[in-house]
Amino acid sequence: MNNNKLKITFLGGVGEIGKNMTAFEYNDEIIVVDAGMTFPGDDLPGIDVVIPDITYLINNKDKIKAIILTHGHEDHIGALPFVLQEIHAPIYGTRLTLALVENKMKEHPKVKYKAITVKPRNVLKIGAFSVEFIKVSHSIAGSLALCISTPAGNVIHTGDFKIDFEPIDGVMTDLQRFGELGRKGVSLLLCESTNVCRPGYSMSEKSVGRALEEIFKSHPDNRIFVATFASNIHRLQQILQLAEKYGRKVAFTGRSMINIIDVGMKIGEIKFNRDILIDIDKIDKYADKELLIVTTGSQGEPLSALTRMAAGDFKQIKIGPNDLIVFSSSPIPGNEKSVYNVINSLFQKGADVIYDELEQVHASGHACQEEIKTIHALVKPKFFMPIHGEFRHLKMHKQIAMQLGMEERNIILPSLGMQVELTPNSIKKVGYTTAGQRLIDGYGIGDMDSNVLRDRKQLSEDGICVVVMTINNVSGEVVGDPFIITRGVVYQDEAEAFVQDTKSMIIASLKEQDLRGCDPTVIRNTIRRNVSNFIFKRTKRRPMILTIVLLD
Amino acid sequence: MNNNKLKITFLGGVGEIGKNMTAFEYNDEIIVVDAGMTFPGDDLPGIDVVIPDITYLINNKDKIKAIILTHGHEDHIGALPFVLQEIHAPIYGTRLTLALVENKMKEHPKVKYKAITVKPRNVLKIGAFSVEFIKVSHSIAGSLALCISTPAGNVIHTGDFKIDFEPIDGVMTDLQRFGELGRKGVSLLLCESTNVCRPGYSMSEKSVGRALEEIFKSHPDNRIFVATFASNIHRLQQILQLAEKYGRKVAFTGRSMINIIDVGMKIGEIKFNRDILIDIDKIDKYADKELLIVTTGSQGEPLSALTRMAAGDFKQIKIGPNDLIVFSSSPIPGNEKSVYNVINSLFQKGADVIYDELEQVHASGHACQEEIKTIHALVKPKFFMPIHGEFRHLKMHKQIAMQLGMEERNIILPSLGMQVELTPNSIKKVGYTTAGQRLIDGYGIGDMDSNVLRDRKQLSEDGICVVVMTINNVSGEVVGDPFIITRGVVYQDEAEAFVQDTKSMIIASLKEQDLRGCDPTVIRNTIRRNVSNFIFKRTKRRPMILTIVLLD
Repeated sequence: MNNNKLKITFLGGVGEIGKNMTAFEYNDEIIVVDAGMTFPGDDLPGIDVVIPDITYLINNKDKIKAIILTHGHEDHIGALPFVLQEIHAPIYGTRLTLALVENKMKEHPKVKYKAITVKPRNVLKIGAFSVEFIKVSHSIAGSLALCISTPAGNVIHTGDFKIDFEPIDGVMTDLQRFGELGRKGVSLLLCESTNVCRPGYSMSEKSVGRALEEIFKSHPDNRIFVATFASNIHRLQQILQLAEKYGRKVAFTGRSMINIIDVGMKIGEIKFNRDILIDIDKIDKYADKELLIVTTGSQGEPLSALTRMAAGDFKQIKIGPNDLIVFSSSPIPGNEKSVYNVINSLFQKGADVIYDELEQVHASGHACQEEIKTIHALVKPKFFMPIHGEFRHLKMHKQIAMQLGMEERNIILPSLGMQVELTPNSIKKVGYTTAGQRLIDGYGIGDMDSNVLRDRKQLSEDGICVVVMTINNVSGEVVGDPFIITRGVVYQDEAEAFVQDTKSMIIASLKEQDLRGCDPTVIRNTIRRNVSNFIFKRTKRRPMILTIVLLD
Repeated sequence: MNNNKLKITFLGGVGEIGKNMTAFEYNDEIIVVDAGMTFPGDDLPGIDVVIPDITYLINNKDKIKAIILTHGHEDHIGALPFVLQEIHAPIYGTRLTLALVENKMKEHPKVKYKAITVKPRNVLKIGAFSVEFIKVSHSIAGSLALCISTPAGNVIHTGDFKIDFEPIDGVMTDLQRFGELGRKGVSLLLCESTNVCRPGYSMSEKSVGRALEEIFKSHPDNRIFVATFASNIHRLQQILQLAEKYGRKVAFTGRSMINIIDVGMKIGEIKFNRDILIDIDKIDKYADKELLIVTTGSQGEPLSALTRMAAGDFKQIKIGPNDLIVFSSSPIPGNEKSVYNVINSLFQKGADVIYDELEQVHASGHACQEEIKTIHALVKPKFFMPIHGEFRHLKMHKQIAMQLGMEERNIILPSLGMQVELTPNSIKKVGYTTAGQRLIDGYGIGDMDSNVLRDRKQLSEDGICVVVMTINNVSGEVVGDPFIITRGVVYQDEAEAFVQDTKSMIIASLKEQDLRGCDPTVIRNTIRRNVSNFIFKRTKRRPMILTIVLLD
């Protein structure tokens, strides 16, 4: 029993953007906050999804009392299908968050779980923990911060948030409650850091609505398209209101968009007159000026509706000079090239395109510096740890906390696997546990196996050359011709000559040696080395060489 | 003879950023402006360099009188080693540009060429063309705009430029000459568009120097590192001056940096007291406060000095808490992730890092909207074509020209391969010639061969599975076990079971069929299909399957 000690384990979202996960442990009980995924970069070819390494949770699975979700973005709920295969604990979240989880779990029908709906201002007793849910604004509805209380002290976890003075649903980030809790005494603040390098305040969601309205007003005759993130329900709400006000019918494209509208309507997060909805197949019945098409693909995703429209490859819609496409989004780092490709193609089809770089048609869901300072000022915690950011964000967040008067010794920068212990009077780093990436590749969940990834990388850059040959075990002579297949090495017009020359080289090089009774491994390695050098001289490439020696 | 007609062919840099190249043709004479390369995106795995398709130039090689280089950046000179293998024409450029070409051509000693040095305000007669060279500011010294005159009219090609009121070398973009030429009458303006979506004015290079000086002043005791682009000679000049002023010795790392300093000193573009230079191996002899280390790697390039320092992998330098690293650069789109990885690692080693997002320690070399408008206002051309930009940039540039009063019918948006004809009173599109990408892959120069690239892509995502089996031609029986090798498909711990199961599956599936006298192609395809389906069911992956059937 670690009386009066709260142990916090950081399993994701620290030193990185994405796959958020934190575990809070008091005596023999654990609650987990978030279970997120991240999308792999170019250094992980063929990997579909990256989730946190949850070895620590698996080793302590009997202690886990709850998985609490701050909101329904993939970097907070995306690991659930995999985590729930290993861990059995009820899931807590707002209606929208749980509806999105339900939707996701449809693809994993064998995984069972129990879901408990919570609301802002609810306070739940979960084992030794008291958990209060606090309303925050973010780029998805139903977002929460948490106040987690134990005898070790009160901990505030902000989730992802911004301060929006004009929230679409009329309910602001609960600054008052942050202040009230701060007044009572908060031991530790865990505060998100995504936009901590941006000075000032984030734009309000309503100002995006106003910018969009200006566009509707000034383009009365165009067919209007708006591309945005499917999960941004408040953005969708505003877009639908504009359609109604300006007399346009709305057609949705993109499966995720249609899903979220269904979910949003079912739980009452989106309210609008259903009569304005039409099926995408029916748009031919309406004039351009009567139409608004709302679509996914704002990140230039290859298979999305918008990308296909830009390529002239979408059955129901041909883009032309009377079309106006608004990207109500900004490119996620890494997606710039794909997004601008789509924008260029749309322009080339004669359409007009309005995007983030040109007008303020998107607002970030994350707090900038002055908003972050506001939370610090309200909560005035004894100790502080920045979360949800790369190291440079966490470091900048530390600097800001120090500018606000916090002493350096009361700040800890977390990293993956770090464990800290909080008591009523102290916080200290106590060590590190296993943490990192689990790579999801098709059905497989593996620990990072660098061989597979290194192989894929080599294959992708230089291709492969397979050499198969048969050798008479007794005479040591080569039987027949070597068999050579290449993929990704030489271009078609050179291929035949290349294969012929490689064959001749192998036969010539083997003639120089006596292979009788030779170990096939030795023969194989000799051939591999010769072929590799031969190809390098000729092409400056080092493809993977697979040699297969059969004995006759 | 196409009397009084100037034909302009756009071979690169239009509808794209990079690989700039334009050909001007009058009667039977051609001059080529720039011969640039571009770096391939993720969609071209294993390709090293992309250059323009120069079929049109090869087909007209006898007409080519000159290759004129506006400046020495890779997207203007990088294709020369390949172009000069096909085309023999003298090269014109400023001293620095030609010195950089000379440096580059050292790697291609067999390619011979003749170089002619030009200076701003020079006017050269090249065949029927009169070419005037006009000084412009850009992020490399020795940059030029061109005024190309024929009886068909005067054409101004801006090259890449900005208007810097405080140029480091004391010589401004020659606004007066642009005005003078405009007053005399310019038929056609070809103006660069890279930053045309940015409102306002670009920062002056000297303001970067002032920001850097503030950093030197406020960090008197730190060891300072500055990472920047090797080719930005004026930036290097300012950094060296600061080192001198603040009593620091300078060590360079990175081969390209050392090369350019050599070149710059030789031709007098960089002037500084050589005594302050020290060898990187000697830095241990100096205190931190006496040192400035200037390095490449500002784009997070994997093998660069800075990336290796960040990884703790650079012999002479260990990064620690007394180090301050300044990124005097901004990430080129697509490089953000690598750059921030390096920044995070440096922070983690305790160093302080200042980068573009936080302070104004970099200035772009390209004109923003108000600078572009200034050139339009000075030149007041009859006709206008925007160049050097993606389609969205060219389109925006057209809008700006129209805002300034140009009629839409006098503007043409160029695209790759487009040919226009200019006469004293008209401009018109006359057609398209072959144009596009040539991919340089090792030693090979090929036309786009989509098979090789598609293969590499599949290999990189799902790996490869090779199946080799011997079949008795007479009995149709399988001889021995099938031989199976996979790369990039399964993780190590599953590999053995996977190979065993695949073997059993193949043997079982072949037993069901009578293979006697069967066409090996049929057997091969059957096996391929079975193995592919088997692997998909098991792993949800579709690796490339190579089956080799040997007859015994």
